[in-house]
Amino acid sequence: MAGGLTHLNEKGEAQIVDIGDKAVTRRRALAQARINALPDTVAAIMGGGLKKGDALAVARVAGIMAAKKTSDLIPLCHPIALTKVSVEIEAIDVTTIGILATAETTGQTGVEMEALVAASTAALTLYDMAKAIDRAMTITDLRLLEKSGGKSGDFVLKP
Amino acid sequence: MAGGLTHLNEKGEAQIVDIGDKAVTRRRALAQARINALPDTVAAIMGGGLKKGDALAVARVAGIMAAKKTSDLIPLCHPIALTKVSVEIEAIDVTTIGILATAETTGQTGVEMEALVAASTAALTLYDMAKAIDRAMTITDLRLLEKSGGKSGDFVLKP
Amino acid sequence: MAGGLTHLNEKGEAQIVDIGDKAVTRRRALAQARINALPDTVAAIMGGGLKKGDALAVARVAGIMAAKKTSDLIPLCHPIALTKVSVEIEAIDVTTIGILATAETTGQTGVEMEALVAASTAALTLYDMAKAIDRAMTITDLRLLEKSGGKSGDFVLKP
Amino acid sequence: MAGGLTHLNEKGEAQIVDIGDKAVTRRRALAQARINALPDTVAAIMGGGLKKGDALAVARVAGIMAAKKTSDLIPLCHPIALTKVSVEIEAIDVTTIGILATAETTGQTGVEMEALVAASTAALTLYDMAKAIDRAMTITDLRLLEKSGGKSGDFVLKP
Amino acid sequence: MAGGLTHLNEKGEAQIVDIGDKAVTRRRALAQARINALPDTVAAIMGGGLKKGDALAVARVAGIMAAKKTSDLIPLCHPIALTKVSVEIEAIDVTTIGILATAETTGQTGVEMEALVAASTAALTLYDMAKAIDRAMTITDLRLLEKSGGKSGDFVLKP
Amino acid sequence: MAGGLTHLNEKGEAQIVDIGDKAVTRRRALAQARINALPDTVAAIMGGGLKKGDALAVARVAGIMAAKKTSDLIPLCHPIALTKVSVEIEAIDVTTIGILATAETTGQTGVEMEALVAASTAALTLYDMAKAIDRAMTITDLRLLEKSGGKSGDFVLKP
Repeated sequence: MAGGLTHLNEKGEAQIVDIGDKAVTRRRALAQARINALPDTVAAIMGGGLKKGDALAVARVAGIMAAKKTSDLIPLCHPIALTKVSVEIEAIDVTTIGILATAETTGQTGVEMEALVAASTAALTLYDMAKAIDRAMTITDLRLLEKSGGKSGDFVLKP
Repeated sequence: MAGGLTHLNEKGEAQIVDIGDKAVTRRRALAQARINALPDTVAAIMGGGLKKGDALAVARVAGIMAAKKTSDLIPLCHPIALTKVSVEIEAIDVTTIGILATAETTGQTGVEMEALVAASTAALTLYDMAKAIDRAMTITDLRLLEKSGGKSGDFVLKP
Repeated sequence: MAGGLTHLNEKGEAQIVDIGDKAVTRRRALAQARINALPDTVAAIMGGGLKKGDALAVARVAGIMAAKKTSDLIPLCHPIALTKVSVEIEAIDVTTIGILATAETTGQTGVEMEALVAASTAALTLYDMAKAIDRAMTITDLRLLEKSGGKSGDFVLKP
Repeated sequence: MAGGLTHLNEKGEAQIVDIGDKAVTRRRALAQARINALPDTVAAIMGGGLKKGDALAVARVAGIMAAKKTSDLIPLCHPIALTKVSVEIEAIDVTTIGILATAETTGQTGVEMEALVAASTAALTLYDMAKAIDRAMTITDLRLLEKSGGKSGDFVLKP
Repeated sequence: MAGGLTHLNEKGEAQIVDIGDKAVTRRRALAQARINALPDTVAAIMGGGLKKGDALAVARVAGIMAAKKTSDLIPLCHPIALTKVSVEIEAIDVTTIGILATAETTGQTGVEMEALVAASTAALTLYDMAKAIDRAMTITDLRLLEKSGGKSGDFVLKP
Repeated sequence: MAGGLTHLNEKGEAQIVDIGDKAVTRRRALAQARINALPDTVAAIMGGGLKKGDALAVARVAGIMAAKKTSDLIPLCHPIALTKVSVEIEAIDVTTIGILATAETTGQTGVEMEALVAASTAALTLYDMAKAIDRAMTITDLRLLEKSGGKSGDFVLKP
């Protein structure tokens, strides 16, 4: 461990840390992302009109599929057999979209990164679909809200 | 196009839009992400001490490799032959890390998503390595700073 | 070439055949798949009721994303920079769903496999979502309807 | 669950459904695909002559490797640690090739999709290798023949 | 089994062999690779000077990430949930770099291939970064040094 | 460039170097790997008996498919649209198997890494299939034999 970073060994070298002795427990994580955008952009994404297109479904699917690729994206993450993934998208106000991603597993390590990857990828997918009308959209508040399971215990983000 | 979202057809159905008639031009994008964290976390990541470990290199590599996976993550992105990718990480202040990602190509569509995916993945990789000491870290300000090339012209984010 | 199979050399060994001397042309392919299912299954998928869920969007996205993975799935396919992919799904009759997938590129080899992979993956995704109510669904008529571009000329399936 | 589709929640939104409470059991699935082709095409693929090339081996390998990518292709499939995959290819008659794919695991969810993905990818790989001589080949009868294990019980397709 | 090759059935056909009845045990493998290069190349890679760049970190990360992709690269490998991966790189002498890769899991099959893929990919990544100065570098001695766990028992390479 | 390593910038940080200004030329690389094994192992792999199984075809396909994944494995490699890939395997003597891999493209950067990845993956795939009978097999002489195209000119390994 170098400077408190558990993924580096005593020489500061990156490694996938040994979880072979950790208990198999039920683990869950909830992560969030928000998108700040123009009111017209939020309306276009959320489908305020009568005709609701695929935009939200595409973003949900992208987040779900990305969660399954987490260990392929984040170099020191263990591969994890996810038992559940879901992504919810809602308008917080006229200029803000909120994304909540949940990941669950029964295993030896947590699923915080899976939930975060799902939330960020869903947000980036919305950005991609709307960028032609609003390139200044900003993704913000990408963070872990809750986690449970495992030796480090439960975590709930303080408001 | 449904409600201004170019990636949906007139029925609101997702598609990879036709770029076959667009000009092949040199294209570049610069994206940003920031991480808000405790001062000790920022110090641990940035290697304030004498011994500097792999943390920043791992995050840079993760961002670079993720940029190459963009069309596998963002459902409606075209596959792009990137000609350059780089990721820079620096401390902005004692509680803030800044990430800048650049992507370039010579092709028929832009590389905004590649730069954004690089920035967000580098940020998430830093989160992963430091989460044992600071679960409340927040990724923020994930956005496009500049793009050039292509018919839609240049873009520079207004400050 | 062994027995007419162009992907095998004169010793019968698999290879990715040389397309370095082929012309760069605009290429397009249209493929089809059909699903035979119980009337209730077709209704559940096509959203005959008031509330239309994500099912068709998920299948469209799956087909589109799979098209981009074609060279990763079909061993002797060249990697191709697709310029367009779309998937359409409609009810043919009360027990039949029809899927049409279009792929386009500007390159040295055709996109028949990309269109076929999109059609089959969209069909399998619908199967996955509906299998709890109808395990006997059958995917049929998976074939190339049309192709254009390239030296071998245009092809239209005879009715 | 929307309209009987278990992969959508009550609002019709796609999700990877929670299998965390399902029993870990031995699970097996057997899927089928058939290819209708010209007699010369079937002969070229099946290696009727003295010299037998790699064609069938390439298709078997493609099917096996695709089975391992199922959760990357079918958006709402759980990642599964397959314990066995095999693909058999044989001539049914002079114009028909039959493909049988078996997948097995010990886990919390079934492997129907893995077997179906193996069968369809093996079939598409044969199509790819033979398409220069017979573009009108059709893949048909892609379906689940048998499954065992899990709460929903055994399934055998009725003839 | 054909000619002693366990991955082929009695007809010589490739398959992912059934491990469903094998015991779940703790398994570990240690693999090696060496690079023979010019003294200047070894010095450039190992950072003999004051300023040590990312080269070794990039190679370690590449090896670690490749280990997680083993079942996607080696056709008949089972997918494995690795519990630990590490890669060490050191100068053996002025013309030789040594790479050691360790992989661990708790599962039904061994992790020899994961360790070998990590070692070879780390070596190839060093080759890639240094090839502009020394195209004649050779990777050699890529082999299994030790394995433990599983029915076939422990193995230590004889010196 | 740090210490002559072109993939690191002046600060020693990894990057995908800019090839946007390089000429598009026809490029080709030939790489080699050898396997040292027991005579019985070589015979089992090469199919000395009457019944020749899939072993060599599986290794060829694995090498070809891995070449297409090169930019996903080697962090700083550019994605390349390969126009040809082939892998040849032959017995050099009773204890040595030789592997030759060829890769070609028309593009802005070379395909040395693609050829090397094909050769090493084919070798590792043979190791995987034969490891139950000979764990001490060693992969050696993995190197570039020839390359052509590009500004750095042609290269032929000196014997």
